[in-house]
Amino acid sequence: MSDLRWKTAITKVEPNKILLRGYRLDELIGRISYGDAIYLALKGELPPGNEGKVIEAILVSVIDHGGSPPSTLAARTIASTGAELSAAVAGGILAISQYHGGAIEECMNVLSEGVAYQHETSAALEDAAEWVVKRYRDRGKRIHGFGHRLHTRDPRTARLFELAATWGVAGRFVAMARAIERALSERLQRPMPINADGAIAALLCELHFEPALADAFFMMARIPGLVAHIHEERSRQKPMRRIHPTDIEYDGPEERPWTGERVE
Amino acid sequence: MSDLRWKTAITKVEPNKILLRGYRLDELIGRISYGDAIYLALKGELPPGNEGKVIEAILVSVIDHGGSPPSTLAARTIASTGAELSAAVAGGILAISQYHGGAIEECMNVLSEGVAYQHETSAALEDAAEWVVKRYRDRGKRIHGFGHRLHTRDPRTARLFELAATWGVAGRFVAMARAIERALSERLQRPMPINADGAIAALLCELHFEPALADAFFMMARIPGLVAHIHEERSRQKPMRRIHPTDIEYDGPEERPWTGERVE
Amino acid sequence: MSDLRWKTAITKVEPNKILLRGYRLDELIGRISYGDAIYLALKGELPPGNEGKVIEAILVSVIDHGGSPPSTLAARTIASTGAELSAAVAGGILAISQYHGGAIEECMNVLSEGVAYQHETSAALEDAAEWVVKRYRDRGKRIHGFGHRLHTRDPRTARLFELAATWGVAGRFVAMARAIERALSERLQRPMPINADGAIAALLCELHFEPALADAFFMMARIPGLVAHIHEERSRQKPMRRIHPTDIEYDGPEERPWTGERVE
Amino acid sequence: MSDLRWKTAITKVEPNKILLRGYRLDELIGRISYGDAIYLALKGELPPGNEGKVIEAILVSVIDHGGSPPSTLAARTIASTGAELSAAVAGGILAISQYHGGAIEECMNVLSEGVAYQHETSAALEDAAEWVVKRYRDRGKRIHGFGHRLHTRDPRTARLFELAATWGVAGRFVAMARAIERALSERLQRPMPINADGAIAALLCELHFEPALADAFFMMARIPGLVAHIHEERSRQKPMRRIHPTDIEYDGPEERPWTGERVE
Repeated sequence: MSDLRWKTAITKVEPNKILLRGYRLDELIGRISYGDAIYLALKGELPPGNEGKVIEAILVSVIDHGGSPPSTLAARTIASTGAELSAAVAGGILAISQYHGGAIEECMNVLSEGVAYQHETSAALEDAAEWVVKRYRDRGKRIHGFGHRLHTRDPRTARLFELAATWGVAGRFVAMARAIERALSERLQRPMPINADGAIAALLCELHFEPALADAFFMMARIPGLVAHIHEERSRQKPMRRIHPTDIEYDGPEERPWTGERVE
Repeated sequence: MSDLRWKTAITKVEPNKILLRGYRLDELIGRISYGDAIYLALKGELPPGNEGKVIEAILVSVIDHGGSPPSTLAARTIASTGAELSAAVAGGILAISQYHGGAIEECMNVLSEGVAYQHETSAALEDAAEWVVKRYRDRGKRIHGFGHRLHTRDPRTARLFELAATWGVAGRFVAMARAIERALSERLQRPMPINADGAIAALLCELHFEPALADAFFMMARIPGLVAHIHEERSRQKPMRRIHPTDIEYDGPEERPWTGERVE
Repeated sequence: MSDLRWKTAITKVEPNKILLRGYRLDELIGRISYGDAIYLALKGELPPGNEGKVIEAILVSVIDHGGSPPSTLAARTIASTGAELSAAVAGGILAISQYHGGAIEECMNVLSEGVAYQHETSAALEDAAEWVVKRYRDRGKRIHGFGHRLHTRDPRTARLFELAATWGVAGRFVAMARAIERALSERLQRPMPINADGAIAALLCELHFEPALADAFFMMARIPGLVAHIHEERSRQKPMRRIHPTDIEYDGPEERPWTGERVE
Repeated sequence: MSDLRWKTAITKVEPNKILLRGYRLDELIGRISYGDAIYLALKGELPPGNEGKVIEAILVSVIDHGGSPPSTLAARTIASTGAELSAAVAGGILAISQYHGGAIEECMNVLSEGVAYQHETSAALEDAAEWVVKRYRDRGKRIHGFGHRLHTRDPRTARLFELAATWGVAGRFVAMARAIERALSERLQRPMPINADGAIAALLCELHFEPALADAFFMMARIPGLVAHIHEERSRQKPMRRIHPTDIEYDGPEERPWTGERVE
């Protein structure tokens, strides 16, 4: 034992036994979902209810958004120079920051302020939302998680909230997000719909994750998308290609209905 | 349209509609698992059978391995300097390379060679395994995916192979891995059990993934573990800590049985 | 010309001609030092005096600091996994952040506040230094750039300030650093000598660089050190080594005098 | 002393004394150039002649190449998301790989093969160059370091070789580069001039650096350029900008003559 000995409460590794937060990994494999395992790794406990399902829904909802996001362009640009997969993925991760993915964390803070105000003042939901909107407007700050430069109605939001209701995790934060959406749209006199960032922020608040972990969920979600783009860059394109950030043509399968059975 | 226009077959983004490989994301959310979505993103089609379950089992199996792996140490070292989450995660990703995670890709190549030889020569399984072992020994090359410096019997392997059998995806590659395990242990006169890298390699071969994507699965699996370590580093430790690579004490929950119901 | 056309004032690249800030690169090569070129690249003008020499002195002063800094450990940890040189260097760079290298930027802000106060209030140097020290103490904030966990008298500081005086660039910021050193040591009743970070901060202030660029100088300085460590790791060590953060033995050349002629 | 104790021959750090390869850093600061210090850090000895000058000339020659190189685009893309300076620089570094910067290492190998053949067979220079060109052509491999997609006559090459001659470091490798240039142009019936990568490769060979370190010189050279671009991106552009890879307008100072005195 040295004076640099340190402690960790995440994983215990012994010969022939690996405990994640106290549970044998070999007992968990195949019995819990990856979403459950993420919850366990980050929170220290298995999800008491449908939290793992919510996490998987979040991960699926932002798994990819085409060739234009800066994380995708950074990853493709690095892949195009012949770099290793890990270098290209790392470059994509480095582009997940304040303006790209960061809205989730900022929106979690907004929703938390609103719910805390509501709790402390016993204000009505709508009044608390008004207070939040006014507060940000007065400080000249934008409220992140509402509006989208492309989507006037983010298709992922309705679905995520519908599932949250079904799974019993839609509470005060989802309600606050909806109320701020109304207050903000009213104030700006144009629709300011909750976007995917805002919907994810509300759900992560319902699951009691710290805002400091928000980016992590976006990173976890986006890795498969980044890998798909890196793999396609290597397979379809020449090295050292000049990568246009927007003039991109989709030539994959045309729209096709999902015909499987519901998991939920 | 510019002369730099380029094509992608992964995701089509239109106002209020996002198609992943032709499927509307909002239709997929909550209906397919994250494992299914990874398969869809990387392969272009929804999994025909239990492939998504196999992927989730793989991700859970290597989600974390304590404080000593180089990816964990790199991530904690960077986090300790006060860097952003994305910087610490990227540093961890950069440590996933030839000797850390890379064994999965190398083992996929080994298994593919064995199965190809078996197919081309109509050799018996055991003879093909012998051929593979001799071939690598003759070239003085190590066969990755067998043996472990800590585990004499990797607890994750048995569980992964058991599930693969249950889910109907254990075929020639799993059989080849088992045969090489026997041939190698015989030749070296000591147990050379398939480790988690080898088991994952066999399963990714059964799912017909390219070896070049092997590292990606290890990265996807390990991100939650890296994030948990980065978060713990920030919460429990002082900045600029000298991080000992092995003198680590686990002080999390003691071993506890998993008592939930089986998902499978 | 597209609507995404953008402008840069750094480098003009034409067939057979490359202009850096208006100067032909081929005219500059061999005529200006790398320190001059850094000044030109970042400031847009050639140094009017000895600024290029100051920059080179800064770069030499922090080119390496042994095996223990987190940037070095991150780089070696990543190199040890068999990763490419660029991955290991990038990992080292990612560890240059708030607590590692970041003191230069923070100290530049401290010195700038002191000099601005002195200028605005016509206060005596010592009074301005007292004001700065009190201001930070009152807010419970540390003043970075003073004191060192190892060096009671940082050998690089005296030399850098001596050169700055010789080269005519030691002005109000160096004086302020010295005055804060006195005020801080007095207040804490123990020596709080200006360390290399503080000395570099003072010189970069004298050269009118923005504090936001401070980290860049530390990065530029440290890359050769990182590369030397990565190269040594690959040459002398086995892959996947457990890298102790402090138990390091130096076995290079013993102390030897520099006997060359002075460049200055 | 632990069983993880390890050795390094680069830097010895003691209280109030830092030895780089045996020399006190405070004695070196201001007396040797940054180029000399790079040589010392990487080689372990001070340059016996003008090697430090050659290194500085190399660093100046590729300090920047406008907005289009992938390292620049990766760095700007990441900076545009609001990431820290270190993240953007690391992203740029990760794009320095096989096809971007990697030509220097490949050309060093080509020149080394040619010089070794010449030495072993006592062949005439031209015959050795012919042998090299034929050897690569026969294997269907490109010889890197010759030709440029923009420059028909790379302005940096002539200057670097002129300086190398003046400084007494132009020997067999520079001669081999020139001979291969002639042989290649003859064989392809079009000019295949040595580009900056090729010229740098020849000079690094003359300085007896290992090809494995070639990328390091490109990284060291390019950091100030990357930093200038990142700083300009932050100062002049809005966050989350779509960054066109080629439609870039230079609006810096027009061409202006360098009127300083020669350093050499």
